[in-house]
Amino acid sequence: MNPENNFEIATLGAATNSSPLHLSKTIGDQIFNFVEDDNKILADISLNGFNVCIQNNIQPACLEKAGPREKLFFKPRNTTAAIVTCGGLCPGINNVIRSLVMALHYFYGAKRIIGIPYGYEGLIPKYGHGFRELTPEIVKDIHEFGGTMLGSSRGGQPVDEMVDTLEKNNIDMLFAIGGDGTLKGVNALGEEIEKRKLPIAVVGIPKTIDNDIDLIDKSFGFETAFDVASPIIRDAHNEATGAYNGIAIVKLMGRDSGFIAASTAIAMPVVNFVLVPEMGFALDGENGFLQALKKRLQMKKHAVIVVAEGAGQHLFEGGERLTDASGNVQHKDIGLHLKRRIKEYFDAEGTEVTIKYIDPSYIIRSAPANTNDSLFCNRMAYQAVHGAMAGKTKFVVGRLNNQFVYLPISRVVNKRKKIDLEGEFWFAALQSTGQPFSLQ
Amino acid sequence: MNPENNFEIATLGAATNSSPLHLSKTIGDQIFNFVEDDNKILADISLNGFNVCIQNNIQPACLEKAGPREKLFFKPRNTTAAIVTCGGLCPGINNVIRSLVMALHYFYGAKRIIGIPYGYEGLIPKYGHGFRELTPEIVKDIHEFGGTMLGSSRGGQPVDEMVDTLEKNNIDMLFAIGGDGTLKGVNALGEEIEKRKLPIAVVGIPKTIDNDIDLIDKSFGFETAFDVASPIIRDAHNEATGAYNGIAIVKLMGRDSGFIAASTAIAMPVVNFVLVPEMGFALDGENGFLQALKKRLQMKKHAVIVVAEGAGQHLFEGGERLTDASGNVQHKDIGLHLKRRIKEYFDAEGTEVTIKYIDPSYIIRSAPANTNDSLFCNRMAYQAVHGAMAGKTKFVVGRLNNQFVYLPISRVVNKRKKIDLEGEFWFAALQSTGQPFSLQ
Amino acid sequence: MNPENNFEIATLGAATNSSPLHLSKTIGDQIFNFVEDDNKILADISLNGFNVCIQNNIQPACLEKAGPREKLFFKPRNTTAAIVTCGGLCPGINNVIRSLVMALHYFYGAKRIIGIPYGYEGLIPKYGHGFRELTPEIVKDIHEFGGTMLGSSRGGQPVDEMVDTLEKNNIDMLFAIGGDGTLKGVNALGEEIEKRKLPIAVVGIPKTIDNDIDLIDKSFGFETAFDVASPIIRDAHNEATGAYNGIAIVKLMGRDSGFIAASTAIAMPVVNFVLVPEMGFALDGENGFLQALKKRLQMKKHAVIVVAEGAGQHLFEGGERLTDASGNVQHKDIGLHLKRRIKEYFDAEGTEVTIKYIDPSYIIRSAPANTNDSLFCNRMAYQAVHGAMAGKTKFVVGRLNNQFVYLPISRVVNKRKKIDLEGEFWFAALQSTGQPFSLQ
Amino acid sequence: MNPENNFEIATLGAATNSSPLHLSKTIGDQIFNFVEDDNKILADISLNGFNVCIQNNIQPACLEKAGPREKLFFKPRNTTAAIVTCGGLCPGINNVIRSLVMALHYFYGAKRIIGIPYGYEGLIPKYGHGFRELTPEIVKDIHEFGGTMLGSSRGGQPVDEMVDTLEKNNIDMLFAIGGDGTLKGVNALGEEIEKRKLPIAVVGIPKTIDNDIDLIDKSFGFETAFDVASPIIRDAHNEATGAYNGIAIVKLMGRDSGFIAASTAIAMPVVNFVLVPEMGFALDGENGFLQALKKRLQMKKHAVIVVAEGAGQHLFEGGERLTDASGNVQHKDIGLHLKRRIKEYFDAEGTEVTIKYIDPSYIIRSAPANTNDSLFCNRMAYQAVHGAMAGKTKFVVGRLNNQFVYLPISRVVNKRKKIDLEGEFWFAALQSTGQPFSLQ
Repeated sequence: MNPENNFEIATLGAATNSSPLHLSKTIGDQIFNFVEDDNKILADISLNGFNVCIQNNIQPACLEKAGPREKLFFKPRNTTAAIVTCGGLCPGINNVIRSLVMALHYFYGAKRIIGIPYGYEGLIPKYGHGFRELTPEIVKDIHEFGGTMLGSSRGGQPVDEMVDTLEKNNIDMLFAIGGDGTLKGVNALGEEIEKRKLPIAVVGIPKTIDNDIDLIDKSFGFETAFDVASPIIRDAHNEATGAYNGIAIVKLMGRDSGFIAASTAIAMPVVNFVLVPEMGFALDGENGFLQALKKRLQMKKHAVIVVAEGAGQHLFEGGERLTDASGNVQHKDIGLHLKRRIKEYFDAEGTEVTIKYIDPSYIIRSAPANTNDSLFCNRMAYQAVHGAMAGKTKFVVGRLNNQFVYLPISRVVNKRKKIDLEGEFWFAALQSTGQPFSLQ
Repeated sequence: MNPENNFEIATLGAATNSSPLHLSKTIGDQIFNFVEDDNKILADISLNGFNVCIQNNIQPACLEKAGPREKLFFKPRNTTAAIVTCGGLCPGINNVIRSLVMALHYFYGAKRIIGIPYGYEGLIPKYGHGFRELTPEIVKDIHEFGGTMLGSSRGGQPVDEMVDTLEKNNIDMLFAIGGDGTLKGVNALGEEIEKRKLPIAVVGIPKTIDNDIDLIDKSFGFETAFDVASPIIRDAHNEATGAYNGIAIVKLMGRDSGFIAASTAIAMPVVNFVLVPEMGFALDGENGFLQALKKRLQMKKHAVIVVAEGAGQHLFEGGERLTDASGNVQHKDIGLHLKRRIKEYFDAEGTEVTIKYIDPSYIIRSAPANTNDSLFCNRMAYQAVHGAMAGKTKFVVGRLNNQFVYLPISRVVNKRKKIDLEGEFWFAALQSTGQPFSLQ
Repeated sequence: MNPENNFEIATLGAATNSSPLHLSKTIGDQIFNFVEDDNKILADISLNGFNVCIQNNIQPACLEKAGPREKLFFKPRNTTAAIVTCGGLCPGINNVIRSLVMALHYFYGAKRIIGIPYGYEGLIPKYGHGFRELTPEIVKDIHEFGGTMLGSSRGGQPVDEMVDTLEKNNIDMLFAIGGDGTLKGVNALGEEIEKRKLPIAVVGIPKTIDNDIDLIDKSFGFETAFDVASPIIRDAHNEATGAYNGIAIVKLMGRDSGFIAASTAIAMPVVNFVLVPEMGFALDGENGFLQALKKRLQMKKHAVIVVAEGAGQHLFEGGERLTDASGNVQHKDIGLHLKRRIKEYFDAEGTEVTIKYIDPSYIIRSAPANTNDSLFCNRMAYQAVHGAMAGKTKFVVGRLNNQFVYLPISRVVNKRKKIDLEGEFWFAALQSTGQPFSLQ
Repeated sequence: MNPENNFEIATLGAATNSSPLHLSKTIGDQIFNFVEDDNKILADISLNGFNVCIQNNIQPACLEKAGPREKLFFKPRNTTAAIVTCGGLCPGINNVIRSLVMALHYFYGAKRIIGIPYGYEGLIPKYGHGFRELTPEIVKDIHEFGGTMLGSSRGGQPVDEMVDTLEKNNIDMLFAIGGDGTLKGVNALGEEIEKRKLPIAVVGIPKTIDNDIDLIDKSFGFETAFDVASPIIRDAHNEATGAYNGIAIVKLMGRDSGFIAASTAIAMPVVNFVLVPEMGFALDGENGFLQALKKRLQMKKHAVIVVAEGAGQHLFEGGERLTDASGNVQHKDIGLHLKRRIKEYFDAEGTEVTIKYIDPSYIIRSAPANTNDSLFCNRMAYQAVHGAMAGKTKFVVGRLNNQFVYLPISRVVNKRKKIDLEGEFWFAALQSTGQPFSLQ
């Protein structure tokens, strides 16, 4: 099979235990149906993609539908599950934790649920963080709060020591909520577990406020991010209009992908320019950003600029690239750079402008999940538990074409999802802002 | 062709004018691409659906992708467009109006944009409502407000008189924002226009807070609805726990489909029972609702019940069915019925309970669109304008499998979309509430 | 002394223990000062009041300033405190509970803090509600939630049985959070305790969402009430303008006093009529409400009406008066009455109107405290603890002329505070709505 | 008279025109009463203050009650009013503008209302900003938005040129919304007007988000400021607990006075340290801040610090003081300083900490007014108009002891209001945070 088409999920072995869920497999009996492993959905849903498959007589790339399986690998009542949260904050982590606990406890009657404190550090004894027992009583209100009740940390830890901890504590399944780096870690754990022939399932729950996990429609927290950003943009517009030639610059998250910035710009039509990492743009020159900004000010006397943190990195020539503890490249601060360059430009022009620079990132990422993200987190967490109980491992739960699916971790960590500059979404951003199609 | 598979969009004639949009048709040039009419997406995205097509050698049902066309039927700068809003309030109407106006004005340079006041009444001279000119200046802030700046009315008006008005006022395209009845009206207008051989495009923008338009993933305002409902549920839970054996009943919208109620119940896990129109349930009997409620109170001393307005209509035997001006069946009040029956039941049991009944419908439907709905309304309105300019008619814009598509109005008004009681969404609602799978 | 002027606070006896708080009595040392009992503020702050005192050579009415006393009646570390919450929900109850617990625990090192569940019922053994231990850990997040973590109940219970419970459980001080009826109950408890010569302090924390406790500037939860009401009014206006001759009626709380309705009307200037219990008004007649409404519709085609639940009771002639378990008179439903009479009136006039009736009371009273109420609750709860530790009893904490004071319960339960129809506040409401000064 | 006691309001001359308001002067007729100039309230409301007056036989300091006067200086229907907004943004400016316009138009039938764009610049012809006509239709929705619809600018302009503009445009009264510098400007305008013997009233409406105008209970926007800050603090707490030894630093407004910081700390009890300009504190030393922070981390593993922008300026030794265009001293950045010093301290200790620094100032000051501030702005703006119509000049409207009063501008611009470190409010902040009483 073409590896491009391979979305097979690894399993720990034969699923021979009956699910305690009282579901059916009969359509039309109004009883919810177990999902079967061969229940799949197409990755490419265009007619064109269909025709290519027909013409070349090939199987389309398909993904396994998530859902409760009739046969389980684990004996639910004997199961010990562990939950760990890694990397930066993102709205919805607590909702996921809560729903994992509820699903494990109420649906499957799991024996014990362990909270691993402070990310992967919590799996390394030397940090002395201990474990937190998780019960429905303990987690029942946590969805009202942002952050993570378990704490988090950045960066990886030695894989063998972490597997030692899982083994010693009789942990049968580990749910790791984290981004790209965390998911790679989950895969590494899964491989070490395989080598040791241990019956431990490892599940990744992709957390990326930037919505940049490959193949997946949307990740939790992303929608809350631009929801929380929106009133900030609305009010940044007040700052812009509050002064003659007022300019408000709002830097939003988006290291490699500008989904938050562009979504905010479409939702809040007071934005006049949106700059994202996917686009090339020049500051100077006849078609450059500064010239376009000047025209805007001449016409309207104010401007609102939204810039993703990863935009315009090409503007910083030379210089070394630093990385953080999670291995992410540390971006140069495009927001402050813009502020400085705009100031210099209009100073040179002899035009007085008032610039307000706003960086609300921490305010956004630490907010509680909004309603739709809460809904999404809960449904996704349930699916994660169903998959783990069936003995699937090294997989993530995600939504594709509006369906919950299981994907091999190896397939989603290769590259980041990016805005298609030739697609409808980016076109909507350009239409909404009215900015020139090209700024170079 | 199997009529089931036919999603062809009617057009007014050959599109011979060039679009004023500076787009390309070249993939990879980082310039946004015109969408071609044969750019389609599959309606059924299951592997199973694919295989059925292969095995039977049939074309899959496909929908036309929405987007800007290279060739237009209308000369944009000569165009007069009209916008009308019908039926009950729904979050996002003003966002749609605003983005229609902005797209018509800025993208296509339309000559004139007319706001039709108070729904279809505004197209009937005898009401004397007049017209409102719509310009970017007039609509620029309306997205911050709920309701509809144009006003609305329920029910239809004589089709020929309405077409007379369109004709007399040289209106080239009518955008009608409304529900099932409104859309049927749009279709009727389109047929009368066809009969008169007029070059007038009619476009439906489906507005249903209940999210019950057939075939469409989600309609605007729906997400805001359960977003606004959520804190109300959170606080209803305070009412329930605030008294010994406290019961809070919240009636939410959902005449034929329980999407709002079920979404709220999944997002806000304090809900213990969710009752929707799709489900059968008994109040009495060993497995009935009242017995389940009693068990809940014995265990937890409080309960939160969410009921869709159209749920349990089978409980009202006999009696005539009334309809409102839009032709919608008027439901008996299940909320008050539940309140009364619960009271009677526990009175008979000698158990004191405190019941709070909350009906926030008007508060929900008149709220401004939340951020994600704003985003959605803007993107959808742009697509409506692109389709109309290309001369498409009698169509709606909708989202299917996460893509914006054009659908023939005739295909979406036949029946209501309903919750699949055997699907993942309803299962999530049952898992979240913990209510018994069957209440009869 | 003129009883009108007597605001003396009863005490349990000599305060002989030293406060554990490290405060000073020296002004200017930048260390917070103990408050002395003779530190008083004037009740009447008008120059006129001052002059009357001078001319008649009388002492002005004064209130004792709240605050930490240097000498305490109780030995803090031996103290057992109890907290009970009574009557209907009101935003801020949990904030008060939380701050009482924090102050008792951290400032005074109290031995034990008992939560009495479900109001006065919780002091009566036969209900079997038990006690809840309250610690900082247990209450630390409760301020984020509306309602009361202790539950509540309406109505009184036998005073001697309640005192028995206090005595048997070695409770040294009882904090009762409740309205008029509850405060009378606190006073009765205090009198029974006096009779038994027990060293138990009883403290009332006035809870009235209607802000109708006599003498007190404002009560907690009141500001949140009109804060939560405001977007509801904003959106009710959308309902009104959404239909030709649209009328939105919003019924707000206010049994005897219209502070919530009038405050909302001033804060949200879309309100066109505000009807409160303090005012007389006629529906019919040339200067009556219906005629004024008609004029409004003729001019503006829509109207928003805010009506306090206790307004217009004079319109219900005859009929018996029912009371609830707390002894409050149950009002006839003025909202539905208005809706019916408006409908009849315009039907008779042959004018079609669309009326939306909105009753958000449960949504408002169960909301969490807003920020200013949180601030207020915390400061007030601290003062309650300081007073109780000093051995004061049968008092309430309140704010008068912007200062926290202790008042004898007996002085605040005699009559309800009402809007002064000749004062600035009501004039602002009339100015904001533009309604006629008289509607009769 | 002791100048300390002199709160006389200057007037333009005899008030000989009858008010068009249909009020009475009879108490008890349920018709709103004109306020008379000798209706005054006491500045000092303590019993002690009363006794001092008695003993020394002196008149107490009194303030004139705001409100509609029976006799006016201006002929209302001939009046032209102007409104100008100066300095930084503050929630509620638009509410004040709206209510000024409504009061001028509807209560007094003013002939013309002029909006002066971009602060005092708008009164200087060379800037070419023009005027904006203000009508009820234009301002009716502006209260829903933050910022100022008129735009603003910092700094003063030549007084004589500004008076020239007032004179040339037949402006009868100028309402200037602004802070300390603006109010001094209003006074200077008033003096120049006096010199020229012009019948122009100048009114200051004090705008200080910091709440630091002397003598006044609270200024508009202040309450919104700590309301908007509160969820930011709640979520900063999520950042702090999200990492082992996590520290969140939130810098809030407060140049000379820490009311916002301290109010937020009391309202949101997750704050562990609050640092304000009024307090001295050391970073180093046994009782210094860093040592206290270390103890906190050892105990709880996280800390939330709120710091007012003007706090700790004594920590920056030497160095020149810069001022902004309004003449305000530009503070050194205490937030970044704290961040750096905390990092250095724990690095030296060998303790890993995670510090998040959050500066939400622009987000706060550009937000729309919250409900209570809306209420406050509306009532205050009405009072400003009543005062101006009566011919009063060089005054501000403010609230003192919960009453609206008129104060001479000269009395409120002498010094800033500050937190009394020995008072109840600061004590509440210390109690709420649990921070040591002294940090030096």
